[in-house]
This record gives sequence, C-alpha cells and structure tokens, in this order.
Amino acid sequence: MPPEILPIVEKILSANDLLALENRKLLDEHDVLAVNVMASPGAGKTSLILHSIRALQGRLQVGVIEGDVAGRVDADKVAETGTPVVQINTGGGCHLDAPQVQSALKQLPLDEIDLLFIENVGNLICPTGFALGEHVNMMISNVPEGHDKPIKYPGMFAAVDAIILNKVDLMPYIDFDLEAFRTAVRALNATAPLFEVSCKTGEGIEAWAEWLQAQKRG
Amino acid sequence: MPPEILPIVEKILSANDLLALENRKLLDEHDVLAVNVMASPGAGKTSLILHSIRALQGRLQVGVIEGDVAGRVDADKVAETGTPVVQINTGGGCHLDAPQVQSALKQLPLDEIDLLFIENVGNLICPTGFALGEHVNMMISNVPEGHDKPIKYPGMFAAVDAIILNKVDLMPYIDFDLEAFRTAVRALNATAPLFEVSCKTGEGIEAWAEWLQAQKRG
Repeated sequence: MPPEILPIVEKILSANDLLALENRKLLDEHDVLAVNVMASPGAGKTSLILHSIRALQGRLQVGVIEGDVAGRVDADKVAETGTPVVQINTGGGCHLDAPQVQSALKQLPLDEIDLLFIENVGNLICPTGFALGEHVNMMISNVPEGHDKPIKYPGMFAAVDAIILNKVDLMPYIDFDLEAFRTAVRALNATAPLFEVSCKTGEGIEAWAEWLQAQKRG
Repeated sequence: MPPEILPIVEKILSANDLLALENRKLLDEHDVLAVNVMASPGAGKTSLILHSIRALQGRLQVGVIEGDVAGRVDADKVAETGTPVVQINTGGGCHLDAPQVQSALKQLPLDEIDLLFIENVGNLICPTGFALGEHVNMMISNVPEGHDKPIKYPGMFAAVDAIILNKVDLMPYIDFDLEAFRTAVRALNATAPLFEVSCKTGEGIEAWAEWLQAQKRG
C-alpha cells in the first residue's frame, strides 16, 4: 500500500497580486498611505479628492493617480491645485490594475507625498477584484444614485474600509430613504465608517479628513 | 516556387455572439422589438422603463428583463404594474450576456409582448461589449452625474442608437453645462437622438415613447 499523499494547494498569487505587493512595498518604503477611491461614474470622486487636498493642507501632502477610460479632465483639475498627479487612461478597461499603478508610481515624487489617492475608473463592480497595492479601500455612494445601491452592488459595499455618501445637499429634492440606506450598508459591512458629505457645501469633509489622518498615523 | 497562398481571415463569431443571433431570431419570430437599456448605477433605468410602460399603454404591450448583480427590487417594481418580467442576477458579473438573456426569454410570454426592455447591469463600460440579441441599444445619462461623462466614457456614448439625459428637474441645483454635454455627445455620435427627460415630473417621456413606437413600426 503506497504512503498516503495529501495534496496541499496553496493560494497562488496572480500576476496582478504580485505586482500589487511590489507597489505596496514601494509605498511603504516611502511612507506613503495609498487610498483606492471607487464609485459609480459621476459620484464625486475627483470632487472629494479636491476637497480632501484642501482640508489636509498643512497636515498631509497629497499625491493623486487619476484613472479614466479616456480623457484628462480630472488630472487637469488636480494639477491646478499644485498637487502631483498622474493620469492613467485604461483605453476601455473598466478598472485600474497593479501594472498601471506601478507605472504611475514611477512618475510621482513619492518622497514628498504622505497620502496618495488612487482614483479608480467609475464602476461599482469590477474595481474590487484588482488589488493595486493600496492600504485603504473606500467608496463613494451618492444621494441621486438612490438608497438601494447596497442591495444591488453588495460586493463593493462589503469590500471597503470606509463609505462616503456624497451630495447630501440634494436630499430635499430627491426621494432618498437615509435610514434604509444605513440599514442596507450595515447589513453588508459592520465596521466601515459612513461619512455623509456634500462636495458642494463642504459639509462632512472635516470628519473624513480627520479619519484619513488617523489612518496615516496608523 | 510554390503557388502564392492568400490567408483569408473571416470574422469568427464568439459563443456569445452566436447565442445573441439565436435570441434575435426568436425575438423576430415573435415580432418583439428588444431594447438594451444601459447606464450607470442609479441613472434611472427602472424608472424610465416604468414611465415607458405607462406611456405606451394601449399602444404597445411591454415585457421586461431586469439585470442586476444581486437583488430583485427592480423586478418587483415592474411586476406591480402587471407587466411580464424576469429578473437575472449576475452574481458579480458586470454586464448581461446572451446566455442569460436566452434563459430569461424562455420564461416570458413572447407572443403577448410587442416591446421588450432588457435592463442591463449598472455600468457605463462593459455592457457594450456583449450583444444580447437586441434591436436597439440605448443609454441613460443623468444630470447629477455631470456633463463630462461623454469625455470619460466615450465607448458607450458612441455605441448607442438613442441617448436619454434623465433628471433634468435637478438642473437648477447642479452645475451642469447642457451645451457642453450636447457638444461632447455629438462629437461621439452624430445620429442618435438625445431625449432630455425627468422621470420625476414626466417631462420628455412622450417624445421618447413616440420614438420607441416608430422603431417598432420600423
């Protein structure tokens, strides 16, 4: 009788995950906290980043990687603030990946950056499947999008470390059930803080900036 | 010297495209016009379908296939109107495909349906890459999403036969440059009609319903 052989299957890292680990190592060497910013198209990713840059001025130096299918309008807006920024165009790709971020990191002055926002492509589904090397995953939901989004896109709401509900200034004009939204979020994610903000009025931005600073202190 | 051989590469249909052709044939046999409804999460796909059902009452019998990553809230809303509806849950998939639609078609009373809305998963990128058997591709953009969406998601705006700009009732509360939006749309798509509507007030719905009816008369 032959000796019993127990097959041992270890988790094999994908090529993307291996490069994400390299990105993470590079970020750590330069003491940069990387935040993966995910949301639907038009949820306010760039607006939130611009508000965060202003709110963190004098506290943390920010850098930005902008991901879009096409165009450079977002990178141009960030560059106007004097913040180091690199635009990635995926050319049809529906999410960023670690190789794209690796090539962007080479073009950023990492020694001068404390906090790096990586703005992912506008998409509530695919980006969670691709590690970039980030330390924090966050998403932006928004009032006009409707309170049922956690039910329809549970993967994203479950995967993130922080959730922003943007455009709360539009609450009076929209049938948005805030309690139903909060309950649906909590059913999927018991721990992520939920920040209710308006990138139009600035409401709620300071609490978010303080949370980011706390993550940086680790 | 050997005779010259000219390699001829014909377009090979993917498995998805082959099933899409089968779907199209089945729809044509039952004289059903199928409309692929694409948009970001929360753009108002289900709201537009509900408005269209009401507007077309007495003119066209509507059927609906609802596509979502998870949940059945949309199908429940449609079922309340007495309209035949099937919910597809992609379980993480970021777009519908022809096999999913084929299985849904088998559950619909096609002989009683004139117009079939296929509501795709909320995503401005991936759905255009997968034929379902539809006759008409359309998309819904919306005011809170911002006027720069054509620049950032050109593939979808270029691919569709009709474009709806929803939530025009929110125009007074949002910095939306309508002329910039129209110009960006026209640069990508010279022929698709652009309907400016509000699923809150009903503005613009009748023009859209008449256009649908004209497609049906074909």
